[in-house]
Amino acid sequence: MLEQINLPKDLKDKTIKQKEELAEDIRKLIIETVSKNGGHLASNLGVVELTIALHSVFDAPKDKIIWDVGHQAYVHKILTGRKDKFSTLRKKNGLAGFPKITESEYDCFNTGHSSTSISAALGMAKARDLLKEDYKVIAVIGDGALTGGMALEALNDAGYSKTDLIVVLNDNEMSISKNIGGMATFLAKLRTRRSYTKMNQVIKNGLGKIPYAGEHVIRGVQKVKSGLKHLFIPKMFFEDIGYKYLGPVDGHDIDKLMDLFKIAKTTEGPVLIHVVTKKGKGYKPAEEEPDKFHSTGSFDIETGKKNSSGKDYSSVFGEKLVELAKNDSKIVAVTASMKEGTGLLKFEKEFPERFFDVGIAEQHAIGFTAGLAKAGLKPVIPIYSSFLQRGYDQVIHDICIQNLPVTICVDRAGVVGNDGETHQGIFDLSFLNTVPNLTVMAPKNFKELESMLEIAVYAEKPVAIRYPKGTEDSILNEFNQPVEIGKAEVLKDGTDLAIFAIGKMSATALKVANILNNSVAVINVRSLKPLDEEMVLKYAKQTGNIITIEDNILTGGLGETIQSVLRKNNSNARIHCYGYPTVFVKHASISEIEDMYGLSVEKLAYDISKFMDAK
Amino acid sequence: MLEQINLPKDLKDKTIKQKEELAEDIRKLIIETVSKNGGHLASNLGVVELTIALHSVFDAPKDKIIWDVGHQAYVHKILTGRKDKFSTLRKKNGLAGFPKITESEYDCFNTGHSSTSISAALGMAKARDLLKEDYKVIAVIGDGALTGGMALEALNDAGYSKTDLIVVLNDNEMSISKNIGGMATFLAKLRTRRSYTKMNQVIKNGLGKIPYAGEHVIRGVQKVKSGLKHLFIPKMFFEDIGYKYLGPVDGHDIDKLMDLFKIAKTTEGPVLIHVVTKKGKGYKPAEEEPDKFHSTGSFDIETGKKNSSGKDYSSVFGEKLVELAKNDSKIVAVTASMKEGTGLLKFEKEFPERFFDVGIAEQHAIGFTAGLAKAGLKPVIPIYSSFLQRGYDQVIHDICIQNLPVTICVDRAGVVGNDGETHQGIFDLSFLNTVPNLTVMAPKNFKELESMLEIAVYAEKPVAIRYPKGTEDSILNEFNQPVEIGKAEVLKDGTDLAIFAIGKMSATALKVANILNNSVAVINVRSLKPLDEEMVLKYAKQTGNIITIEDNILTGGLGETIQSVLRKNNSNARIHCYGYPTVFVKHASISEIEDMYGLSVEKLAYDISKFMDAK
Repeated sequence: MLEQINLPKDLKDKTIKQKEELAEDIRKLIIETVSKNGGHLASNLGVVELTIALHSVFDAPKDKIIWDVGHQAYVHKILTGRKDKFSTLRKKNGLAGFPKITESEYDCFNTGHSSTSISAALGMAKARDLLKEDYKVIAVIGDGALTGGMALEALNDAGYSKTDLIVVLNDNEMSISKNIGGMATFLAKLRTRRSYTKMNQVIKNGLGKIPYAGEHVIRGVQKVKSGLKHLFIPKMFFEDIGYKYLGPVDGHDIDKLMDLFKIAKTTEGPVLIHVVTKKGKGYKPAEEEPDKFHSTGSFDIETGKKNSSGKDYSSVFGEKLVELAKNDSKIVAVTASMKEGTGLLKFEKEFPERFFDVGIAEQHAIGFTAGLAKAGLKPVIPIYSSFLQRGYDQVIHDICIQNLPVTICVDRAGVVGNDGETHQGIFDLSFLNTVPNLTVMAPKNFKELESMLEIAVYAEKPVAIRYPKGTEDSILNEFNQPVEIGKAEVLKDGTDLAIFAIGKMSATALKVANILNNSVAVINVRSLKPLDEEMVLKYAKQTGNIITIEDNILTGGLGETIQSVLRKNNSNARIHCYGYPTVFVKHASISEIEDMYGLSVEKLAYDISKFMDAK
Repeated sequence: MLEQINLPKDLKDKTIKQKEELAEDIRKLIIETVSKNGGHLASNLGVVELTIALHSVFDAPKDKIIWDVGHQAYVHKILTGRKDKFSTLRKKNGLAGFPKITESEYDCFNTGHSSTSISAALGMAKARDLLKEDYKVIAVIGDGALTGGMALEALNDAGYSKTDLIVVLNDNEMSISKNIGGMATFLAKLRTRRSYTKMNQVIKNGLGKIPYAGEHVIRGVQKVKSGLKHLFIPKMFFEDIGYKYLGPVDGHDIDKLMDLFKIAKTTEGPVLIHVVTKKGKGYKPAEEEPDKFHSTGSFDIETGKKNSSGKDYSSVFGEKLVELAKNDSKIVAVTASMKEGTGLLKFEKEFPERFFDVGIAEQHAIGFTAGLAKAGLKPVIPIYSSFLQRGYDQVIHDICIQNLPVTICVDRAGVVGNDGETHQGIFDLSFLNTVPNLTVMAPKNFKELESMLEIAVYAEKPVAIRYPKGTEDSILNEFNQPVEIGKAEVLKDGTDLAIFAIGKMSATALKVANILNNSVAVINVRSLKPLDEEMVLKYAKQTGNIITIEDNILTGGLGETIQSVLRKNNSNARIHCYGYPTVFVKHASISEIEDMYGLSVEKLAYDISKFMDAK
C-alpha cells in the first residue's frame, strides 16, 4: 500500500482496511531502516496508526502538527514526501532523525528535546488568531514528556486560553524509562477504567461516524460525554484546567482515532485527546523491551540482537558508581528518565531505595539532587550534556550558590553524531565554566572517569565530570598518573610545542604529536575549572607554542581559558585553539563531523604543522 | 509583644491573642524597615500569621521550612533570632533579603528564584528517610510559583512518593502579577466555594482542637474530610495525584492555621495545605496595589508614595515598544509574570490582545515566543537576566536552532545590588555568547536601547539586548551614532590606549579616560556578537594597549572575546580585562559592589594607570 502514498492527500480516499495495510508497510520500512541506520524504533512503531489518522483528518502543511521530542516523527516523514529518502535517515546529508523546518514544509517546528510542543503550539495558535488565519494546530506529546515542567507550564497556560488548539496525549504508559510521578498514576487511573472502551463505543456509534459534524452536533457530543464522564471518570483534571477532553481511545484503531480527530477538528477552544498506544507495536523484541529499542544502534531483525554493545563511558560510569555505593550508603543516584542511557540500570537493581528516577524533569531532578545533598547524602546525577542545558539555572541557583556536594556526570558531551543539532553536547564546557564554586573535569579514558567519579563523590563540593558518547581510545591506557582536581597530566614531554587537550581529545592530541616533525608535548588537561595554570605557564615558557584541542565550542571553553592564563601572566607564547565554531552541528557520524570541522587527526596535524611553519 | 520573642521556642506558650499582637508588631517592623531599605513588602505582609503559625507548630531548625522564592522570609527571619539585625536588611554586610544557609541555621535552603521549594523539600525528605532521621520538611509555595514548571515537576514527583512531606500552598490569589493559567482557574474554584469556611469549621470543631492527635484520629479526620470533600470540592486534583489535601483555610487566622499544621504534622505521606492569604495584608497601599509593593524601593509610610520612580531602562523599553507596536500590528509582547518589573504595563493596556502573560514559566514563555515567531509575528520578550538562566535551553533549542525572529530583552543585566547572589545578572553575556545564530547587544543609554529595540524587532533573526537595572548616565547623551548590528561606536579617539566597554560600562570608561594622563580612546562595543573585529584590530594597531570593561563575569564574556580576536589576527597588542570574577556576588548597593570588585571609576583609573606604567 505504501507505494500508493506519497503525500497526506493520497490518504484521503483510502479505506480503513487500506490504511491498516499501509500501517504494516510503514512498520516494515521503519524496522528495516532502523535495523541498519540505528535510530528511534519503539516510539515510531507506537504511532503508526496515530500518524496515519492525523494525516487522514488534518490538512498538513496548512494544519500544523508539532511532534514533541520529535524522535517519533519517522512515520510522519514517510507520509510527507520523504519515503524514498528514508534509507538516508540519520546519515550525513540524509534525512534528520527529528523534524526540521529546513527539510520539509510538513515539519512546522523543530523538536529534539522533550516537552516543548504545547508551548510552540500555543504560540502558533495565538499568532494564527491575531493574523486572522485559518488552520489547526496540533501538539502530539507523550505521557512521559508531559512530566516535563515546560509542558506542564504550557498545558496550564493553554488551558486558560480560549484558543483553538489540539493536544494529542500519546499515552504509551511509559516514557523513555517507566513513567514516573503522580501524573502517571492519574493517567493510569483514567486508562484502566474498565468502561472506557464502552464509552468510546457510545461516542462512535452515536455520533462519531458523522464526519465533520457541525457545531451543534459536536456540542451534543460533548454534552453526552460530559454526562457519561461522571459515570466513568469522575475526577477530570484536564477539564478542570480548561480542556475539552476526548478519550481514552485505542491508539492502534485508525477508525476510532479518525472519529475523535474529526470531533476535535470542529471543537472550539483547547481540546485534549487521550490516545493509548503501545511502544514497539508490531515488532516483538521492541514490544517486550521498549527501553532497549527506544534509541538503538543497528540490530538483527530476526533476533532483535544489537550488533554492538561493548563497554562505553555510560556503562563504565554505572559500574563504578555501584562499586562506590557498595562501600558508602550515602551515595545515591538521580536520573531524569534516562536510567538506561546513562548506565544506571545496575545501580537501580542493586540499590532500589537509593535510586531516584524523577521523570523527564531536568529542573526538578537537579533541585531534588540539591535537596538530597543539603540533607547529608552524596548524590550523583548523570545527565546528557544537551539536556543539562535545561538545568543551567538549577546548577547555579540550587547547587552551586550553596556549594553543595553534588556530582553531575555530563554524559554525551561533545558531538554525539547522528542525533544532530539538538543533541550535540558542545556547549557544556562553556556554560559550566561560568558557574562559581563548580569544578569541571573531563576524563581521557574509562579508568580516568572512574578515578574522577570517586574524587568527585568525596570532594565535598559540586563537581561536573563530562564524557563523550561511545568508547575509549586504548592508545591512552598506558598513562595512569593519579587524578587530582586542578592538576593536568603530561602524556608526553616536548620542547617545540605543547598541545593541551581535554577529555577524549587527548587521544587525538597524542596521535597528532606522533605525526608532527616537532618535539611536541601533550598535556591531558583533566580539570578545566580550576585549571592547572602552573602547567600552562611551564609549557608556555618551555615551548613558546601552545595548541588547545577541545570537543566543545571555542567560545568560553578550554582554549579561551588557557589564553586568559597566558595573558594574565604576560606570557608571549603563541597560542592556537581548536574546537567547534559557534554553530549548530548537523547530523552525521562523529568521525565525519570531526573531519568536517578540522578536528580529525589528519587535519589537525596538517594545520598545526602550518602553525609551526608560520612561526 | 515582639520584645518577648527571639526564637521560635518563645512562641510555644503564647496565646492566640498574644500571637495576634505579635503579628501587628511584626507588620510594623517590616513596613518601617522596607520603607527605608526597600525590599519585598506585599508578600511578607501576607504571610505574617502563616509564619507565626508554622513556627508555633513545627520545631525549626530541626524541622526544615523551605521558603519558595524566599522574598517572603522576612517574618521568618524576625522570628528566628534576627529581629535586632532587621534594620540592616539588604544592606552591605547586613541581613540578606532571601534565606541564606550561611546566615542562620533556621535557613535550611537558599532560595531566590521561583518554584524550587518542592524539589528541595522532596530531596531533603528522601535523605531524611534514608538516613533514618526524624524531622519534618515543609515547602511554602505561592500559587504563582506553582505555575513554574520546576514546581509542577516536583509536585508530580512528590505526589507519587510515599514520603512524609508538607506543601503549604500560599494562595494569595496572585503571583507577582495577576496569576495566570488553568491552574489559577482551578485554584479559584476551590477558593471560592462558599462552603469552605463551613468545612473548616467542621474540622475545627470536630477534631482540630485535639492537639497532636494520634494516627487513628487523623485517619478519622481524613475520612470525614474525604466524605465532606465530595460535597464541597468534587474535583480534587491534588488528591488525584497523591496528596492528602487540607483546606482551604483563612491564612490570617492563626488558630485555624495551627490546627491544620498539627494535623499535617502527624499525617503520613505527602500533604498539601491550601492557605488563602492576602498580599499586603495590614498596609492599605500594599493591599490596594500589591504589584507596586511587590518589590519596592524606599517609600513614605503615610502616603505609600515611592521616593524615586524616574525613568529607567525598563520604562524606556516599555514606552518604545508601545511606539513601535502602534505602527506594526505584528509586534507582540510576552512576559513570565513580570509585566510591571519589565515595563510592560502600558503595552498591556494599549494592546491587550497582543500581550501575553504566561505566568511564572520562563521555559514555556520562551517556547511560546518561538511559536509566535514561527507563525509570523514579531514577538518581544523582556526577562530578567538571572531568570533567563531558566530558559537557556529554550533560547538554544526553540529559538536559535530555527533562527526565529525573536527579540529577547535581558533586563536587570549586570549587578542588581540589594537582591544579592540569586539575582545578579552577571552571567548572561557569557551564556548568550555561546548560542549560535543569536545576536547579542547592549545599549550605553536609553536612546541606544530604543534604537537597538527597533533594529532587533526588524532583524528577522534572534536578537538579545541586555540592559541594567536603573537609570542611564547622562554623560553619554551627546553620542548618537546610528546603531548597526556588529558595529561599535567610538566615543573618543586616542593613541596610547583603547578602552572597549559594553553597555552602561561605556560611561564608566569615558570617565576613566577623562582621568588618565594618556591619550585614551573609548569604544562603546554595542554588539558583542557579532563583534566589530575591525574596530578592535584598528585600535590594537593604533594604541597597542587594549582595555575591556564589562559588568559580567570575565569568563566567556567581552574581554575573552576581544582577546580571541587579537590572537586570531596575530596582534601583539597588550590587553587587560575588567569585569567580575566567577563568584557569587553578595547583596550591597550597585556602587558598593562595583567598588568592591574594582569597577568603580576611581579604582579602574588607578589600575589602568598601573597597567600603562608597566608597559
